[in-house]
Amino acid sequence: MKGYGMLSIDHAGWIEKERPACGPLDAVVEPIVLAPCSSDTHVLHGGNGPKKDLILGHEAVGRVVETGNLVSKFKAGDVVVVPCCTPNWLSWNTQGEYNPHDEGLMASFKFLGSKDGTFAEYFHVNQADANLVLLPENVSPEAAVMTVDMMSTGFHGVENANVEFGDTVVVIGIGPVGLMSVAGTKLHGAGRIIAVGTRPNCVEVAKEYGATDIISYKDGDIVKQVLEMTKEGADSVIIAGGNAETFRQAIDMTKPGGYISNVNFFDISDTLAMPALSWGLGMADKTIRGGFCPGGALRIHKMLEMISNGRVDTTKLITHTFNGFDKIEDAFKLMDEKPKDLIKPIIVI
Amino acid sequence: MKGYGMLSIDHAGWIEKERPACGPLDAVVEPIVLAPCSSDTHVLHGGNGPKKDLILGHEAVGRVVETGNLVSKFKAGDVVVVPCCTPNWLSWNTQGEYNPHDEGLMASFKFLGSKDGTFAEYFHVNQADANLVLLPENVSPEAAVMTVDMMSTGFHGVENANVEFGDTVVVIGIGPVGLMSVAGTKLHGAGRIIAVGTRPNCVEVAKEYGATDIISYKDGDIVKQVLEMTKEGADSVIIAGGNAETFRQAIDMTKPGGYISNVNFFDISDTLAMPALSWGLGMADKTIRGGFCPGGALRIHKMLEMISNGRVDTTKLITHTFNGFDKIEDAFKLMDEKPKDLIKPIIVI
Amino acid sequence: MKGYGMLSIDHAGWIEKERPACGPLDAVVEPIVLAPCSSDTHVLHGGNGPKKDLILGHEAVGRVVETGNLVSKFKAGDVVVVPCCTPNWLSWNTQGEYNPHDEGLMASFKFLGSKDGTFAEYFHVNQADANLVLLPENVSPEAAVMTVDMMSTGFHGVENANVEFGDTVVVIGIGPVGLMSVAGTKLHGAGRIIAVGTRPNCVEVAKEYGATDIISYKDGDIVKQVLEMTKEGADSVIIAGGNAETFRQAIDMTKPGGYISNVNFFDISDTLAMPALSWGLGMADKTIRGGFCPGGALRIHKMLEMISNGRVDTTKLITHTFNGFDKIEDAFKLMDEKPKDLIKPIIVI
Amino acid sequence: MKGYGMLSIDHAGWIEKERPACGPLDAVVEPIVLAPCSSDTHVLHGGNGPKKDLILGHEAVGRVVETGNLVSKFKAGDVVVVPCCTPNWLSWNTQGEYNPHDEGLMASFKFLGSKDGTFAEYFHVNQADANLVLLPENVSPEAAVMTVDMMSTGFHGVENANVEFGDTVVVIGIGPVGLMSVAGTKLHGAGRIIAVGTRPNCVEVAKEYGATDIISYKDGDIVKQVLEMTKEGADSVIIAGGNAETFRQAIDMTKPGGYISNVNFFDISDTLAMPALSWGLGMADKTIRGGFCPGGALRIHKMLEMISNGRVDTTKLITHTFNGFDKIEDAFKLMDEKPKDLIKPIIVI
Repeated sequence: MKGYGMLSIDHAGWIEKERPACGPLDAVVEPIVLAPCSSDTHVLHGGNGPKKDLILGHEAVGRVVETGNLVSKFKAGDVVVVPCCTPNWLSWNTQGEYNPHDEGLMASFKFLGSKDGTFAEYFHVNQADANLVLLPENVSPEAAVMTVDMMSTGFHGVENANVEFGDTVVVIGIGPVGLMSVAGTKLHGAGRIIAVGTRPNCVEVAKEYGATDIISYKDGDIVKQVLEMTKEGADSVIIAGGNAETFRQAIDMTKPGGYISNVNFFDISDTLAMPALSWGLGMADKTIRGGFCPGGALRIHKMLEMISNGRVDTTKLITHTFNGFDKIEDAFKLMDEKPKDLIKPIIVI
Repeated sequence: MKGYGMLSIDHAGWIEKERPACGPLDAVVEPIVLAPCSSDTHVLHGGNGPKKDLILGHEAVGRVVETGNLVSKFKAGDVVVVPCCTPNWLSWNTQGEYNPHDEGLMASFKFLGSKDGTFAEYFHVNQADANLVLLPENVSPEAAVMTVDMMSTGFHGVENANVEFGDTVVVIGIGPVGLMSVAGTKLHGAGRIIAVGTRPNCVEVAKEYGATDIISYKDGDIVKQVLEMTKEGADSVIIAGGNAETFRQAIDMTKPGGYISNVNFFDISDTLAMPALSWGLGMADKTIRGGFCPGGALRIHKMLEMISNGRVDTTKLITHTFNGFDKIEDAFKLMDEKPKDLIKPIIVI
Repeated sequence: MKGYGMLSIDHAGWIEKERPACGPLDAVVEPIVLAPCSSDTHVLHGGNGPKKDLILGHEAVGRVVETGNLVSKFKAGDVVVVPCCTPNWLSWNTQGEYNPHDEGLMASFKFLGSKDGTFAEYFHVNQADANLVLLPENVSPEAAVMTVDMMSTGFHGVENANVEFGDTVVVIGIGPVGLMSVAGTKLHGAGRIIAVGTRPNCVEVAKEYGATDIISYKDGDIVKQVLEMTKEGADSVIIAGGNAETFRQAIDMTKPGGYISNVNFFDISDTLAMPALSWGLGMADKTIRGGFCPGGALRIHKMLEMISNGRVDTTKLITHTFNGFDKIEDAFKLMDEKPKDLIKPIIVI
Repeated sequence: MKGYGMLSIDHAGWIEKERPACGPLDAVVEPIVLAPCSSDTHVLHGGNGPKKDLILGHEAVGRVVETGNLVSKFKAGDVVVVPCCTPNWLSWNTQGEYNPHDEGLMASFKFLGSKDGTFAEYFHVNQADANLVLLPENVSPEAAVMTVDMMSTGFHGVENANVEFGDTVVVIGIGPVGLMSVAGTKLHGAGRIIAVGTRPNCVEVAKEYGATDIISYKDGDIVKQVLEMTKEGADSVIIAGGNAETFRQAIDMTKPGGYISNVNFFDISDTLAMPALSWGLGMADKTIRGGFCPGGALRIHKMLEMISNGRVDTTKLITHTFNGFDKIEDAFKLMDEKPKDLIKPIIVI
């Protein structure tokens, strides 16, 4: 079969591979709608070390082609939404609080992490019964594909930020994940939502999703801006973009007793230098959390329920639509270039 | 001064009293907007035992007339929102998890509970610095008066229901508190919201606030209806109306691991008979909580922040507006009669 | 193979059956130490409806005899601790907050619930990798067998009671589960622990596990006794025994804002009649939880860690030890008779 | 009156001052038992900037000498335990989650922070009803004085570490606060407790309080040691000593999904450099919290309840006892020198 991915660091292209085998608990799926993600381009450029002929992609809605003999809930032909994070639910760690770390750090992220991704004629899903969800009747595949990483990650940022009714929340970074954090923050009861970003497309969607204020690095120190707007600092800050410096800024602009929640992928070379003062010399009762996209069927089912019931329109993220399997290449290149008007591209097959 | 209230059980009327004295930490306030509540009529009819010449009312926005010498944040002339629950913040219990029970069960509910209420030319507020909030510039007094009991109580119902992203939630009873629970449930991330009620006015507002489904007692057993709609039962059920039987129904329609949250005032004569089976013989991991309106300045500030930032329009609750202090009587009588088209009346002074 | 169980309601005896088959994810285990439980006798007497030739027993430490071809962590010969609750971890519900309800209420309780129990030459364990734990080197099988139900259930009672440093906690019922709740309450930071019970054996162990006060039904109304001792009521009450009346008593003796946690199996015929007043007319902010023994490997691993590190000595529960497989019958009959000096019998094979 | 404190940076000595005035909500107290703390010596050496003639000390048990006219629970002659952190409970922030930050970062820490401390013939306590606790009959003043900072802070470290039954917890630093964290960790259900430290006195008490393993910097990299002992890392790490490097180490030795809790006072010049990798590039679901000693009457009452019920013996911390008010000087100098055999000195007056 044909797939698109990483030939070697910085070299992308089409790859010919065997169709993946289907274990007794697993499914093989063919894609219907795909979306590239900056994690895919990050891996291409060596973010995960040197890899050879690795098919990329981890966001997909697809059609089941084959199921293992121990799968009971799905059958060939079912149209399914595929979480980007598909834990081994028989591991001990998934019996704990967080599911993305089944056998170690982020080990539940199988696509890219330990096997080929979804940019292929067929891809493999482990533990189908526990990791696949039927596409609901009133949710489009385009809307659904936004749940598997963007929405689940963005909303995890909100959950970790402990947003309570009437809180003032800052969301730093309004790419697709940050925009989902804005939407989730509104849907978790925030009052004022201050979004930090500059791209006009993103600013517009941020407002539609519930941002009450937009601030920009271009207008000066964002910490100073937030402290002027809020006096004591924000109740919570969600980091959905930025660099090592952002970490310090987020802590600086949070009030004592507040929460800093990270869903940004820091670079392996970053040092998150935090002056002791910023963290109240360790005594400010500021909680810092950083988490990975929760996966599994129940999680994505819940995300789909929110779309299905009209709580959020994830298609606002989709700025570019490509048609046809062969267009994976164009969509991926666009993602890699990140033109100013891009939020999220998809490929409809 | 003049006030309106309970002469004796079942007899309401105007009462002449001394203007309340202002302690060193306290404030005396004159009303700008008032709202009667079914708790007021409940007290009139003996719900709190026999009382003589008790001024009723506990929902108010007003103007500060006098402050004690230890009050630092407020001064005469300030327009303030007055929580219906005004804890003694120097009690030990308010250092714990819940503030409405400062010196015992619901003891933070001072109006009606241990002193005269707000239906008077002047009323007293204990610990003004900790219990009053300035009316925000962009919030109308009419919208604000809905926060002090209706919104804080309805949203407490949501908080106790542990609503998570994508959950299916039932709200039983869509009077003003139940409607606020519907709005709060949407704003806490629910997917499907099933509201139980029949009055056309209320049904319409419930839909505007986010109910996706409306069911009615008139169409048969509500437990059966919910189980048919949800298969396994709801993730959470909020009781915002009903009687002893409602308690059992709520538990019946909740799935194992779910939450039942009560903000209904049961009658002292009720016995909340719960068949053991309904609660999984005690083993269903269903959590049952019932709580009283959280009070104090921070709470009401947060509620006002939600209005101020456009998250919820509380004025949808107001179906009848009376003008002038003397109209307290008419508004109160209307509340007592509860005509079909009533949600909430207010008096603008 | 031979097993001991329920021939029909009220009739126990030896049963001849096929050795259970081992699915690809499963294990077949032979017992080393077994313990009967009042749930076993409860089922015998029809508590779970009429059953024919059902092997009883759900508490076991054993030796793996066979594993399915997808099992990777265990092999024949391994000595393992077997949770009484062995969820299907590929179900959606186990991805939520509670694991005992995999496909419905208590459906993770496979022994007795949906297949034969552990009182047999061989018994079946589903999803071995996720449900078995190796017996730690420094934990005896006798100590370990107490974790799989008694300790996990008793400690779940503590977890649901929200015990915080310095709290006053009442434990109603000091059979083996209640005793574990006493031990767990101390180990979760309680200050004063009031245990309700009368049997001298149990009273002695309760004190050794950390009870500071013992009260008895025989000395009058236990609500009155607790209120006299605590003035405002307890911070938390754990129900580990009793009847429908106990439910009301527990709520009565809890202070506003407190927690009532149930790990008692109520009878299907019980009606847990709660006067509205007891629950503050629904407004007391008292949380009521009732839960089933959490299962799975991680849970029982954590329990074993506590024994292994000397935090608790579960063998204090064991009052009677029988030797030899054939003694299952005697041990079971003893459990059924519940003589005064019995806490928990075991069978060492 | 006479007091001992900071004449200027690095210069300690006796100071002559007016006896503090007693506001209407306040109390004036004379000390019975005092304890110096490294925060006192830290302030002396300029940790809080230049101060002139500031009486030091913030740990005390004393006798009420005078109360304001609005104080209702205490009277002259009462023997009271005095929290080191005495919030203004009429502030809005104390209505939130944490009480040490009433009007800003650590602003509830009045002694040293905004007024004279307890090393004086008389000292002032704000809001006596909400901030003082009667010394329980069966708790010695020596044991009690250890609760007001050491125990409340050390136990706060445990609360923020989210310790659950059977967890493996590392406590870095076993000075008096770290030792209390060890005791609290055991009393919150930990299994294995690994304490990091070297002083023989402290090591011995750590073991008595529940440490199962002791490791030392002297034996090599502590991260490596912990990872070797635990394989995947600890469930939680409590930082109760160390420097900027410790912060990174703590995160390194915590497993994904775990908790890092800080109760160490970092130096204002520290930069808590955290390599992104250590924190899973921001994706490890590791929660980092750092908090200040919770104060107020309810908190210290709960701590005293634990002593009163025999859960913990805080006097194990006391290695040096001085007798007489004049010995404050000697005790303080000892604290400043920190000889190897010192854990905590007290002065009995």
